[in-house]
Amino acid sequence: MNDAGLKHYAAHYQCTLLDNVIPFWLRHGLDREQGGILTCLDRDGSVLDTDKSVWFQGRAGWMFATLYNTVEKRAEWLEAARSCVEFSRRHCFAPDGKMYFTVTRDGKPLRMRRYVFSEAFAAIANAAYAEAAGDSRARDDAIKTYAAFLRCSFTPGVMPPKFEPPRPMKGIGGHMISIVTAQELRRNLGDVEISGRNCTEWIDHSIAEIERDFLKPEHEALMEVAGPAGEIIDHHDGRTLNPGHAIECAWFILHEGKLRGDQRLVQLGFTILDWMWKRGWDEEFGGLFYFRDLRGLPVQEYWHDMKFWWPHCEAIIATMLAFKLTGDAKYARWHQQIHDWSCQQPPAKPEA
Amino acid sequence: MNDAGLKHYAAHYQCTLLDNVIPFWLRHGLDREQGGILTCLDRDGSVLDTDKSVWFQGRAGWMFATLYNTVEKRAEWLEAARSCVEFSRRHCFAPDGKMYFTVTRDGKPLRMRRYVFSEAFAAIANAAYAEAAGDSRARDDAIKTYAAFLRCSFTPGVMPPKFEPPRPMKGIGGHMISIVTAQELRRNLGDVEISGRNCTEWIDHSIAEIERDFLKPEHEALMEVAGPAGEIIDHHDGRTLNPGHAIECAWFILHEGKLRGDQRLVQLGFTILDWMWKRGWDEEFGGLFYFRDLRGLPVQEYWHDMKFWWPHCEAIIATMLAFKLTGDAKYARWHQQIHDWSCQQPPAKPEA
Repeated sequence: MNDAGLKHYAAHYQCTLLDNVIPFWLRHGLDREQGGILTCLDRDGSVLDTDKSVWFQGRAGWMFATLYNTVEKRAEWLEAARSCVEFSRRHCFAPDGKMYFTVTRDGKPLRMRRYVFSEAFAAIANAAYAEAAGDSRARDDAIKTYAAFLRCSFTPGVMPPKFEPPRPMKGIGGHMISIVTAQELRRNLGDVEISGRNCTEWIDHSIAEIERDFLKPEHEALMEVAGPAGEIIDHHDGRTLNPGHAIECAWFILHEGKLRGDQRLVQLGFTILDWMWKRGWDEEFGGLFYFRDLRGLPVQEYWHDMKFWWPHCEAIIATMLAFKLTGDAKYARWHQQIHDWSCQQPPAKPEA
Repeated sequence: MNDAGLKHYAAHYQCTLLDNVIPFWLRHGLDREQGGILTCLDRDGSVLDTDKSVWFQGRAGWMFATLYNTVEKRAEWLEAARSCVEFSRRHCFAPDGKMYFTVTRDGKPLRMRRYVFSEAFAAIANAAYAEAAGDSRARDDAIKTYAAFLRCSFTPGVMPPKFEPPRPMKGIGGHMISIVTAQELRRNLGDVEISGRNCTEWIDHSIAEIERDFLKPEHEALMEVAGPAGEIIDHHDGRTLNPGHAIECAWFILHEGKLRGDQRLVQLGFTILDWMWKRGWDEEFGGLFYFRDLRGLPVQEYWHDMKFWWPHCEAIIATMLAFKLTGDAKYARWHQQIHDWSCQQPPAKPEA
C-alpha cells in the first residue's frame, strides 16, 4: 500500500461514516420526544424495541461530541450529544449511584448488571461533551463516572464475583476499557488525577497488568480471563479466547505507544495483533471468529464461530494503525483482507 | 403410519438409547474417582472440562434410575444412579440449602444462579432412585428439593427478579418444569402432598396458569414470558418465542391428558403443538428454529436461527405421542419429518 492506497481507504471510511452511518442514526435513532437515542432499529430505520441501552447513550454521546470536536462544529451533532448526555444524567443512575444497563424509552429502570461498562461509556461521553460544550457539570460527571468504574472494577470485593471462591477469575475487559476511557478523558480534560492516579498512570497500570497476567508467550495468545496471579484456568471459560477483544486491546496499546513515541508499547501492540490475528482469522472463509479455544478444543458458547460486526471494525483500525506505524506490507495485506471481507455483500442464498 | 411403522421407530429409538447413548455416558462420563458424572465430553469421549453441571447430576441420576425401574434391573444402572444422587447430596448444596449450578470435579462450588432448576432435576433423580433402591433418604430429598423449587419459583419475592420493578415479567419455564417434576414424583412416590398441594394439584396449578396467561389464541402462540397478568410485553424479550420449549410443554400436557383420559387436556396439548410447530419448523431447510419473534421481527439472541439437539428430541416425542393419541396422518408426517431431519448426516462442506 502507498500513500494513494491509504487515502483511498481513508476516503471510504470517512464517507461511510459521515454520509451513511451518522445520518441514519440522527434520522432514525435520535429520540426527539424523550431525549437520548434508540438503538434497536431495523435496516429501514423502523423501531424494533424502544428500550434504551445505557451503554449506547454514552457511546453515541461520545460519537456526536467527538465529531463536533474533531470534524466540524455542526450544531446538530452538538445537540445530539447533549440529548444523550442529558438523558443519561437524568434517567440512567440508580439511587445508590450505580448506572443501569437498560431503561425504558422514557427513562424508567429496566435492568441492572454486576459490572460497570455503562459508567465507562458515560465517562467518555461526558468528557467529549465537556470539551464540545464547555459544560463543567459534564466535566465533573466524566471524572465521577470513571472513578466509579475504577472502584467497582479494581477494588477487590466491590463487584459481586460471577464465580464462587474456589474459582477466582479476572477478566481483561475492565483493563481494556479502562485504557481507552483514560485516553479519552486525557484527550478532552487533560491528564487529570482520578482516585489517586492521573489518566496516564491508570493506562500504565492496566497495560502492566495485561502484559503480566494475560499475555502468554508460551501459547502466543492474549487470554480473555485468568486467575488472580495470571494462572491459566484450564476449563471452558478460562480457555476461551476472544480475538476481537484482543485486537481491540492491541489498537488501544498501539495508539498509546504512538502518542508517547514509546517503541516498547508499540511492539507490545504488534505482538498482540500478530498472535490474535492468527488465532482469529478464518483461513477458509475469511473474517474473524468470535471465540477460539486456547488449545483448539470445542468452545462452549453457541456463537463462537459467528462473525460479528464489531471485531471487524476494530481490526480494520488496528491493522491500518500498524501499517502506518511500520509500513510493513503484512499489515497492508491484512487491512485489505479484512476491509474486503467486511464490505462484501453476503453470498446469494443457495437454491432450496 | 401403521403399527409396523410405529414399531420401526420404537426399535430405532430403543437401540440408539440402549446400545449407543447410555454405553457412551457410562464409559466416558461416569466419574469413578470422585462420583457423579462428567458431561463436557468430546465426540470421542475425551474430557473437555472436568467441571460438573449440577443439572446433569440430577438428569443423569434420573435417567439411570428410570432405566433400572422401567427397562431392566441392571446393577450398573443402579450404581450409576446412586453415584449421581450421592455426589449431588454431598456436594451440590450451598450452606443456605440452595443448590449450585456448577461445581468442580471434586465437588467444590463454582457457580450459583438465581433460579432453581438444579433443585427440580435433583427432585426427579431422588424420586426415581428412591423407587429403584428403596432409599428413604432419597424419598425425603425428592420432596424437599421439589418444595424448594416451588417456593423459589412461585412465591413472589423469593427469586431475585432479572428486571427492575417497571418491567415485571414471568416465564413459562418454571411451570413447564414443575409439571414434569410433579409427574415424575407422582410416578415414583405416589401422589404425595408437598407444600400444601399434592402432585396432581401442582400440575393443575401450572397448566391453568399456562393456559390463562401464556396461551394467546389471537396470535396462535404460546408465549415464553408474559406480564404478571398475562400481558404481552411488546419488546424483544417479551416477543421472543421458544418453539422447542413450547413443544416440550405440549408433550407434558399430552402425557397428563393421556394418563387421566382427559380430552380437554389432550386438546390443549394439540393446540400448543400445532401452533408452535408452525412457528418453529423451518420450511426451507427443515429442523426447528431456536427462537422466533411473535410478530415476525428480528430476534435479539445470536443463536435464534440455530437448530439445537434438544428441541428435536422433544418434538420427536411430542409428535409420536400426538399420533398415538389421534392416528392423525399429520402427526405421523411431522414425526417422520423431524426424525429424518434429526438423524440425517450434516451436508458435505462446500468446496472452499
